[in-house]
Amino acid sequence: MPYFDAASSAPLHPVARQALQAALDEGWADPARLYREGRRARMLLDAARETAAEAVGCRPDELAFTPSGTYAVHSAVSGAAAGRRRAGNHLVVSAVEHSSVLHAAEAVGGGVTEVAVDRAGAVGAEAFAAALRTDTALACLQSANHEVGTEQPVAEVAQACREAGVPLLVDAAQSLGWGPVAGDWSLLAASAHKWGGPAGVGLLAVRKGVRFAPQHPADERESGRVPGFENLPAIVAAAASLRAVRAEADAEAARLRALVDRIRARVPQLVPDVEVVGDPVRRLPHLVTFSCLYVDGETLLHELDREGFSVSSGSSCTSSTLTPSHVLRAMGVLSEGNVRVSLPRGTEESDVDAFLTTLPDVVAATRARLGAPVASAPRPEESPSVLVDALGKRCPIPVIELAKVIGDVPVGGTVTVLSDDEAARLDIPAWCEMRGQEFVGERVAEEGGVAYTVRRVV
Amino acid sequence: MPYFDAASSAPLHPVARQALQAALDEGWADPARLYREGRRARMLLDAARETAAEAVGCRPDELAFTPSGTYAVHSAVSGAAAGRRRAGNHLVVSAVEHSSVLHAAEAVGGGVTEVAVDRAGAVGAEAFAAALRTDTALACLQSANHEVGTEQPVAEVAQACREAGVPLLVDAAQSLGWGPVAGDWSLLAASAHKWGGPAGVGLLAVRKGVRFAPQHPADERESGRVPGFENLPAIVAAAASLRAVRAEADAEAARLRALVDRIRARVPQLVPDVEVVGDPVRRLPHLVTFSCLYVDGETLLHELDREGFSVSSGSSCTSSTLTPSHVLRAMGVLSEGNVRVSLPRGTEESDVDAFLTTLPDVVAATRARLGAPVASAPRPEESPSVLVDALGKRCPIPVIELAKVIGDVPVGGTVTVLSDDEAARLDIPAWCEMRGQEFVGERVAEEGGVAYTVRRVV
Repeated sequence: MPYFDAASSAPLHPVARQALQAALDEGWADPARLYREGRRARMLLDAARETAAEAVGCRPDELAFTPSGTYAVHSAVSGAAAGRRRAGNHLVVSAVEHSSVLHAAEAVGGGVTEVAVDRAGAVGAEAFAAALRTDTALACLQSANHEVGTEQPVAEVAQACREAGVPLLVDAAQSLGWGPVAGDWSLLAASAHKWGGPAGVGLLAVRKGVRFAPQHPADERESGRVPGFENLPAIVAAAASLRAVRAEADAEAARLRALVDRIRARVPQLVPDVEVVGDPVRRLPHLVTFSCLYVDGETLLHELDREGFSVSSGSSCTSSTLTPSHVLRAMGVLSEGNVRVSLPRGTEESDVDAFLTTLPDVVAATRARLGAPVASAPRPEESPSVLVDALGKRCPIPVIELAKVIGDVPVGGTVTVLSDDEAARLDIPAWCEMRGQEFVGERVAEEGGVAYTVRRVV
Repeated sequence: MPYFDAASSAPLHPVARQALQAALDEGWADPARLYREGRRARMLLDAARETAAEAVGCRPDELAFTPSGTYAVHSAVSGAAAGRRRAGNHLVVSAVEHSSVLHAAEAVGGGVTEVAVDRAGAVGAEAFAAALRTDTALACLQSANHEVGTEQPVAEVAQACREAGVPLLVDAAQSLGWGPVAGDWSLLAASAHKWGGPAGVGLLAVRKGVRFAPQHPADERESGRVPGFENLPAIVAAAASLRAVRAEADAEAARLRALVDRIRARVPQLVPDVEVVGDPVRRLPHLVTFSCLYVDGETLLHELDREGFSVSSGSSCTSSTLTPSHVLRAMGVLSEGNVRVSLPRGTEESDVDAFLTTLPDVVAATRARLGAPVASAPRPEESPSVLVDALGKRCPIPVIELAKVIGDVPVGGTVTVLSDDEAARLDIPAWCEMRGQEFVGERVAEEGGVAYTVRRVV
């Protein structure tokens, strides 16, 4: 039963399990106490910090253990912003940061500039640098994107931030298991359960010299940076497993990269009307995302789960919020029928092949149930302009309706789709891009919703 | 090697270990995901919440899991205070709350009234009620004190808070393993590693109808109350072990209560100049605290550790802050040579007896090294007033100097001790209380420090 959602949470690494077991016996006491059980706990904590700091590439006293990656991000943003209060409280982030970064940045309250990304999901270092202002307290950039795997130009952005005197926080949650983050960053956040460590442990590195003012009530744990009793057995397991996955990272990355390349190449051959997104080269080794036209994400995930494949999706139809992934939106790519495959360490070639065998049938069945067009053959010409009322219909119906009638207008003619579904704003232009049709524009419609107009070009 | 510091952290309960092992296999995936691994994680999380809620005595949807007891307290205080912003931002706490409560209350920024305690460490319900104001946002009262074990009148205070329309937060960290908290409280915080659960799990209960505004950036986990990926295996272990310790709580409490009664009775017989503190009856079953005159806590703990006994201390000499415990200070009892013994479940009678055999020798040896008075026999009368310069000398030296010369003045004469040690402010009056001498008062001394004057009465 292949589990392909390592980017959400990776199964526990065997080394993490062993270390956790051992630390349950040795590391349950309070490391702040002076008696032998406390001293033993303190030694375990110190050793774990050294191990993790070496993997991060920082000094042990620059590294604190937090209860989660989200906690590390929240704390890094609020602490660094407060430390720079004199400069201002404006923040710069990429438009494709993890929601924990975006929400924490918003909570600072001084305005947030989101730097746009290209269609592959990467920011430009120059554009990022241009967004830095004299009142910018903090800049935030992920090492690699969690939804599409694209690597960001962290080293160049870090250099630009240094020159502007603005600290840079790197969210390394997705990449730290594969290697240290290059460049002269100021703060770094990560999460152990993404690399096969246990839940309950995040990392927060704050370089010496970075002004940092923790925003929680006073507490002496973790040099005053993280309040509360240390989750020591899990910390020990997190550090041990980070060292273990790093030792095998290069070989495993090469192996998984080849499997992902196979998915990237084969999916568009096997499934019609698919867009593979994210940078094909500058990317995480184990992650690939694609979107299937005329399919809703919820049904697709459900059917894949029935076939034994666990994947995730950034489609609006699968989240509780009914809005498509802000990452796909920022990239301007199709969000409907979206599938993220992230391979855990040890994934077998045969599992990937089984997925590639199953996917086309699942997509075809889902499309058939929705009455989606099977081919894009032109229909007889009749009218130069067609109006489709898709009000009240959810993703992917508006796009399916558009595809059904585009053949009904002659080349040069237009189709206008009325839709009140938020996903249509992203998916109709993306469909045009994929199909080589021209997206004319959108306007608020008198009938309600938004009218999207498409000109038939091919 | 007896470990007598369960109030800091209890060794892992066997049930917690078993549950943790099982949940490592079943509960590593994201419970927010729809595929089978996610659904399995969600079922474990839901079951753990039901189990823990039953033990707390609340509805499952009133209970959130936090990364620590400290986190639960911080979040409860900031969230409840923010939810009551319209009423005001004044807080009422007992003077002997855990530092996490005091620091969180201070951080609200609207002023904090500390309700005094009696010499046993308990607040009076009427005095607590009288401190509630129309602009009081929140009141905080522990179920039982973490340093001396005294139970607080939570049910009566909860009733008074209801009548005043002020929510009451109960810090149940020390007592939840022994039983639910009685009374009509509004919020409750607890910590799993105090009852034998794993580190990394706290509980935060917020009753329906209590206004609560979380102060962290937006996040959907734990009904929006606790951000970050759930520490699921530890949560499962925490809930399972809470149920397990509750099943054996009554029998174990009776057994440990008898052992603590033995310590309470025997220590003053075996060791001269000892004060056993805290309520002898309304108290936690497993915890007892006493203070030994003319001994410094650090040496005492070190010597006991060498003999194989792990205990903690609220003496100023053992903490990193060089100030005595705020709890002992609020109670007005002796802080020097302070020892807290908190028995973990399963403590053997023979361990307690071994401790009672070892303690007198350790105390005597420590006193001898400091040149402390062996007996309190009166010395020849000479002068009606004596000045002792103890400037620059740390606890317990100022009290030892006082004790050495009190016999040198006639009954009715006075001794004045000059000291710049913070602990003297607490310990000289406490010594007078224990010795039946009269504490005349203190004043800022021209020579520097504070002059404490004591009149010889006996």
